[in-house]
Amino acid sequence: MNNFSLDPRIAESSLELGALALSDARINNDSRFPWIILIPRREGLVGLHDLAADDLQLMTQEIRDMSNMLLDVYSPDRINVGALGNIVPQLHVHVIARFEADDAWPGPVWGAGSPDAYDAQSPELEKIRNAFETYQSAR
Amino acid sequence: MNNFSLDPRIAESSLELGALALSDARINNDSRFPWIILIPRREGLVGLHDLAADDLQLMTQEIRDMSNMLLDVYSPDRINVGALGNIVPQLHVHVIARFEADDAWPGPVWGAGSPDAYDAQSPELEKIRNAFETYQSAR
Repeated sequence: MNNFSLDPRIAESSLELGALALSDARINNDSRFPWIILIPRREGLVGLHDLAADDLQLMTQEIRDMSNMLLDVYSPDRINVGALGNIVPQLHVHVIARFEADDAWPGPVWGAGSPDAYDAQSPELEKIRNAFETYQSAR
Repeated sequence: MNNFSLDPRIAESSLELGALALSDARINNDSRFPWIILIPRREGLVGLHDLAADDLQLMTQEIRDMSNMLLDVYSPDRINVGALGNIVPQLHVHVIARFEADDAWPGPVWGAGSPDAYDAQSPELEKIRNAFETYQSAR
């Protein structure tokens, strides 16, 4: 019943982070913002309202957990959460650490300028991957 | 413990719709987009992650219910959900019916152009208020 495959546009514009109970967590490949994308491994979903009740509850927990992880790692001024899907319809949820000094503040990150890809050896990438591993091993 | 009061900036830029179990539902006063704002009646919250576990579950249900209501009333191309708080920190969640022909598509609505206030007698306002009443009485 579940032939989930990641939309290639999400795959190309983001980097692997790890698997949560419901969602694949990925790092948006834009070093301007600490930005996680959660993609529930369910085929054919577009909006949050398409999730079954128990999946919706998992999704909510994973949004909260990733928010708390970003708060711990970056101490941002705000966490932005969004499910839009205007460009890539496959259901995915953005969880972004925002700073009053960031390139898009106080506007939204979506559509703001052009992504600035991470260097493969970026310490920022290592920082978030380490935090994710610590988070996973604490569960 | 709970001295909730609506941020005056939200009060001024939106119109009353009704009260859900956790949140006040308001209509963003911008006739370009069918746009509901949910404000949980809890003092001092900024992010979704600040909600207690049972409130977070209620919040999620209310987002889903308002999404489904907008889908029923407007048959939009997409529902956008966002919790940003970059300008007004008081926790509020946007639930917006989006159309491929709308003024901001495929970009986000936040920061896109200037709001176009509803006429007090707008049939659009009546339509959404009727839908909300029907939704409430069906609970």
